Amino acid sequence: MTRSLSRAVVAEFLGSLLLAALVIGSGIAAQRLSPTDTGLQLLENAGATGVGLYALILVFGPVSGAHFNPVLSFVDAALGGLSWRHFLVYVPVQVVGCVSGAVVANVLFDAAPVSIATTSRATWAHGISEVVATLGLLLVIFSLSRTGRAEKAAAAVGAYIAAAYWFTSSTSFANPAITVGRAFSDSFAGIAPSSVPSFVLAQVVAAVIVLPLLSFLYPHRSN
Amino acid sequence: MTRSLSRAVVAEFLGSLLLAALVIGSGIAAQRLSPTDTGLQLLENAGATGVGLYALILVFGPVSGAHFNPVLSFVDAALGGLSWRHFLVYVPVQVVGCVSGAVVANVLFDAAPVSIATTSRATWAHGISEVVATLGLLLVIFSLSRTGRAEKAAAAVGAYIAAAYWFTSSTSFANPAITVGRAFSDSFAGIAPSSVPSFVLAQVVAAVIVLPLLSFLYPHRSN
Amino acid sequence: MTRSLSRAVVAEFLGSLLLAALVIGSGIAAQRLSPTDTGLQLLENAGATGVGLYALILVFGPVSGAHFNPVLSFVDAALGGLSWRHFLVYVPVQVVGCVSGAVVANVLFDAAPVSIATTSRATWAHGISEVVATLGLLLVIFSLSRTGRAEKAAAAVGAYIAAAYWFTSSTSFANPAITVGRAFSDSFAGIAPSSVPSFVLAQVVAAVIVLPLLSFLYPHRSN
Amino acid sequence: MTRSLSRAVVAEFLGSLLLAALVIGSGIAAQRLSPTDTGLQLLENAGATGVGLYALILVFGPVSGAHFNPVLSFVDAALGGLSWRHFLVYVPVQVVGCVSGAVVANVLFDAAPVSIATTSRATWAHGISEVVATLGLLLVIFSLSRTGRAEKAAAAVGAYIAAAYWFTSSTSFANPAITVGRAFSDSFAGIAPSSVPSFVLAQVVAAVIVLPLLSFLYPHRSN
Repeated sequence: MTRSLSRAVVAEFLGSLLLAALVIGSGIAAQRLSPTDTGLQLLENAGATGVGLYALILVFGPVSGAHFNPVLSFVDAALGGLSWRHFLVYVPVQVVGCVSGAVVANVLFDAAPVSIATTSRATWAHGISEVVATLGLLLVIFSLSRTGRAEKAAAAVGAYIAAAYWFTSSTSFANPAITVGRAFSDSFAGIAPSSVPSFVLAQVVAAVIVLPLLSFLYPHRSN
Repeated sequence: MTRSLSRAVVAEFLGSLLLAALVIGSGIAAQRLSPTDTGLQLLENAGATGVGLYALILVFGPVSGAHFNPVLSFVDAALGGLSWRHFLVYVPVQVVGCVSGAVVANVLFDAAPVSIATTSRATWAHGISEVVATLGLLLVIFSLSRTGRAEKAAAAVGAYIAAAYWFTSSTSFANPAITVGRAFSDSFAGIAPSSVPSFVLAQVVAAVIVLPLLSFLYPHRSN
Repeated sequence: MTRSLSRAVVAEFLGSLLLAALVIGSGIAAQRLSPTDTGLQLLENAGATGVGLYALILVFGPVSGAHFNPVLSFVDAALGGLSWRHFLVYVPVQVVGCVSGAVVANVLFDAAPVSIATTSRATWAHGISEVVATLGLLLVIFSLSRTGRAEKAAAAVGAYIAAAYWFTSSTSFANPAITVGRAFSDSFAGIAPSSVPSFVLAQVVAAVIVLPLLSFLYPHRSN
Repeated sequence: MTRSLSRAVVAEFLGSLLLAALVIGSGIAAQRLSPTDTGLQLLENAGATGVGLYALILVFGPVSGAHFNPVLSFVDAALGGLSWRHFLVYVPVQVVGCVSGAVVANVLFDAAPVSIATTSRATWAHGISEVVATLGLLLVIFSLSRTGRAEKAAAAVGAYIAAAYWFTSSTSFANPAITVGRAFSDSFAGIAPSSVPSFVLAQVVAAVIVLPLLSFLYPHRSN
């Protein structure tokens, strides 16, 4: 099956938009409806993100690979699965999609369309959390694709992200595009712009670390 | 396998009835058992709806397609999967089924068999939420059927709806039949009759929007 | 593959025991750990039951069919899947297994090994709930087996039961053996012995109703 | 497919590390974010563990079998699936991995890298719980592998462990390596060193009991 780049671009844009609307929107709902327990808010946010992400990957996977994530596209390009030309198109589309999704989430909940987040997350614990969270996400995705089990990626990624919201102190953004998008909603899932660079840096570090690890652990690419 | 229309009608009726009983009944239980936190109520309601919907689609899928939803049947008919004659039979059966399910839910919880809901939901944010929620639901279903993965629809739809309860302010009805049915139980999942038309309009708008999008993204129908 | 009756008996006994330990044990834990919100207790109890039941059906399915439930065995026998001789052996094993599981649950939580439950559940709403809940369970199981999808039963039954805990006022026992077993633990999941007969009657009514419905909806037995 | 021991060692180390980070990290988050309800903490911890374990088994399964657990490796060796030489390498790697994961979890949440747990868990009810919990885990894994369904192990183990957190009073460690690891974080999932030996003993007892049970129930090894 040939996939045209134009279809892939629309899929990455819509998927990134819906991912950001999912993450941020469920965070707003959780914050409003469960005002007294932050853990319950995160449980609601993580549960919605996990099952919603599963659905989004199924929807857009056959069209664009359902990346929605520049570091994922980077690793895919580095491993030969995506052309570098497509990579250069994917990244801005993912970022614009996630920012658009933040606006959609705000509108769906009758908030100002854009509000800059004020939650500062720039600590060492958060940075290390993002390295570990992103490393885990990339291991999940590429361990499956390199062993002929790519059809399990939707369920595995949804499950992994729901868990990673909990076992890291950063709640696992693991994605530069969603990190930028989350800066545009001053709500539960938000991140202050000043914390964005350290998160993105940590995510890129994970992408660099994962490459030799993948080559070592899964030497035979079968899919 | 030939599917007789009479079996399909019974399946759509029973499925729509059980869907409404599931959505409304779990809402009543949540409201009664977790009186102090609306978010916890929605978590219980969304979780029960997601896993229950998964089971219902598995049960009735082989008999009627497990639509339970007029806009889903409309899109299926527009794409050539369902005859228009069957569409005209399905829709009233789905609506009567969902209303019957509301009565069943009320009875199961020892409430008055019919009570007209009083929760007003007619705001712009709710309307836009219903457009987005319904668009997402139709994308999930038809992206799978048009790429030869229809057997994943049960899990994908259950997961999507559980997420959509959270990332929209309307809690994602995404179905005109269940919207009408929910008007017949004055409880957690209820909707005032005066808000029903705007919800149904939003859902129909989504069905119209999704058609060209499906043709563009999934041009080759393989199943 | 021939399955010896002795292996099947051990599987039904162990499975029924573990099912009762799962249902009752998670109820005790929920009651102790979340003392202030009954809905949260039910969420914990339902979630544990759903995922645990999924695992138990996978474990014992190939050995005995993983029934753990006299009405399920009855319908299977009536449809020709289980011999009536085996049915007569299965039923007492399931009951003794569930009672043993109640004792195990009590012991695991350092309570008296046997305590007779005092929660009265004999109302019309509970009775009708049990009819609906059991009917749904049997539809899930036999719709799958009669359409060649028996391998999905574990996930579908776990999902359905987790939902049915919520959309019925009886919290969906749907099984005479577990109903008897639950009388032996005076805790969250318990049922007073005086309420047991009406629950069992309702469950048997559902088994009788489901037979013509299955023949109508799924006329061609393919597995 | 040949699997080199060196790759398997790295996989068992990383997998055990991530498992401990998952279990302990999500426990720390739950404890901090939901301070008023222990049941809610366990719900968050169990949910994260279940879905995260599913992902970890998918990631490392093809490389090392994704054991992360000395009693699992013992039973696998006793049944001929793992050489005793590999068993002797796996066990210390699993223990060191889990201890490392405890340190990682502490660091991710900005706590002291090592803190010795103070939660005493050495009661008879906990010991019996560990026997039952471990027996169940081993039944899940080897019933699948001995009936040609090993590809379902990731989902089944994740589901089982999430349930077992609830139906046992010990919250189901079921793994000597994670038991040792949990002693190195004085937080929600911690265990005082003085309680470790009784837990490990109970887990070994389960491994010994399960062997004849597996031979009886699943006599034909098909995978």
